[in-house]
Amino acid sequence: VNLFWAIDRMKQSFAAGVAAGESVDQLKDRLDREADQIHDEDVASCRAMGAFGAEVVPADAAILTHCNAGALATAGYGTALGVIRGAVEAGKQVAVFADETRPFLQGARLTAWELVRDGINTTVITDNMSGALMRQGKVNFVVVGADRIAANGDTANKIGTYSVAVLAREHRIPFYVAAPLSTIDLKTPDGSGIPIEERSSREVTHVGGAQLAPDGAGVWNPAFDVTPNHLIAGIITERGIFRAPYTESLARAFDMAGV
Amino acid sequence: VNLFWAIDRMKQSFAAGVAAGESVDQLKDRLDREADQIHDEDVASCRAMGAFGAEVVPADAAILTHCNAGALATAGYGTALGVIRGAVEAGKQVAVFADETRPFLQGARLTAWELVRDGINTTVITDNMSGALMRQGKVNFVVVGADRIAANGDTANKIGTYSVAVLAREHRIPFYVAAPLSTIDLKTPDGSGIPIEERSSREVTHVGGAQLAPDGAGVWNPAFDVTPNHLIAGIITERGIFRAPYTESLARAFDMAGV
Repeated sequence: VNLFWAIDRMKQSFAAGVAAGESVDQLKDRLDREADQIHDEDVASCRAMGAFGAEVVPADAAILTHCNAGALATAGYGTALGVIRGAVEAGKQVAVFADETRPFLQGARLTAWELVRDGINTTVITDNMSGALMRQGKVNFVVVGADRIAANGDTANKIGTYSVAVLAREHRIPFYVAAPLSTIDLKTPDGSGIPIEERSSREVTHVGGAQLAPDGAGVWNPAFDVTPNHLIAGIITERGIFRAPYTESLARAFDMAGV
Repeated sequence: VNLFWAIDRMKQSFAAGVAAGESVDQLKDRLDREADQIHDEDVASCRAMGAFGAEVVPADAAILTHCNAGALATAGYGTALGVIRGAVEAGKQVAVFADETRPFLQGARLTAWELVRDGINTTVITDNMSGALMRQGKVNFVVVGADRIAANGDTANKIGTYSVAVLAREHRIPFYVAAPLSTIDLKTPDGSGIPIEERSSREVTHVGGAQLAPDGAGVWNPAFDVTPNHLIAGIITERGIFRAPYTESLARAFDMAGV
């Protein structure tokens, strides 16, 4: 939801400029400045998330992440990857396992690329390996991003996040969500109110030019799933880490931020 | 392990022929007959599994399976897919969800192909969707095959099976293993004694000609994982369905079979 939040902010700035009788050039300048400010705030916000998150990352961390919540999905530092970067900057030993994240492979293609470029020890796994990895004691921390967080902490994120959260709980591994306050949607009471987009079957049946599944088979391709709040150890924001009961703690977060 | 079981049986037949002073032609005939008999027994065994398994499949079944335990992996009817075929033959309403089963995609490429060819309602999902699918109440039965079953019921099967078993337990969905007695290895007390092959990283990083993960990222690619016995509702064999405590019930199965 924070994309819509940014669009709303641009629209409000535009409306304020129109109300003040600004010229077209003045309106363009105003929107440029607003966009730059959103960008700078986003980087600052991710760095703050990284600093808060680093505190709960183990000193010798083996971190699993899902999808891409990195520099490529934000203005330049990342939310979940911001926490990983924050832990590295704080001097912790960090190894990362990146779920490849079918069908679109954001983990293999984006997350691994970002982390390798940063010189962080990165291992790609297929999504179905996370359970076996946890059972072997090879993961001690999970952090993911979020597309939308309901008022009670239920979190929509890339398909597969929910499975990871259940598996983390089964193995008593803390599962954290990292996201800016702009991702929290207080108007949505819980996860049942979050619509889940279904995407083209071709994303599942084809990779590059290769057809993976036969004609005649159906495909189910939801873009997201919802992780219920009870599986989440904490929500890492630019204002600190919020914990259950989330309805209270997230409302407080907004009061603190003066939103 | 049942491949090695079949090889042993061929070797024993050969040794018996040599001991009886048979000619090369006689030995060839003997091995042909032995192979045909193994084939026929395998089909009969899978059909028996299918009939036993069909009894525990819900009347209106939405079945999740992982990897391929079908006609393409056996002599012609399948173990897990034998149970599905048995349920269809028993007149049950059956819809199947096939995990695509990365990295080798046996679910998308083999299972879906077999089932579509049989006219069975089949939907392919990526491996990371099974949790969300279960949470939405879209699955009421899980059946998978096995590569090796230890004496206590711990089951090695294609990587990802363990995650499916944990997710099934979380959603109170019965998780069954279908395999012939020849897959049960009474000499291996439990899953910790089952070696897990690690395969080439290229299976994860490439699909067809497309490179999915960047150079510089590590890859973990275990071929199998082990599902502990407490997650398994029952082991469907050609001699019936065996249940916990498996150490006792599986030993009894071998006594019954006179092995």
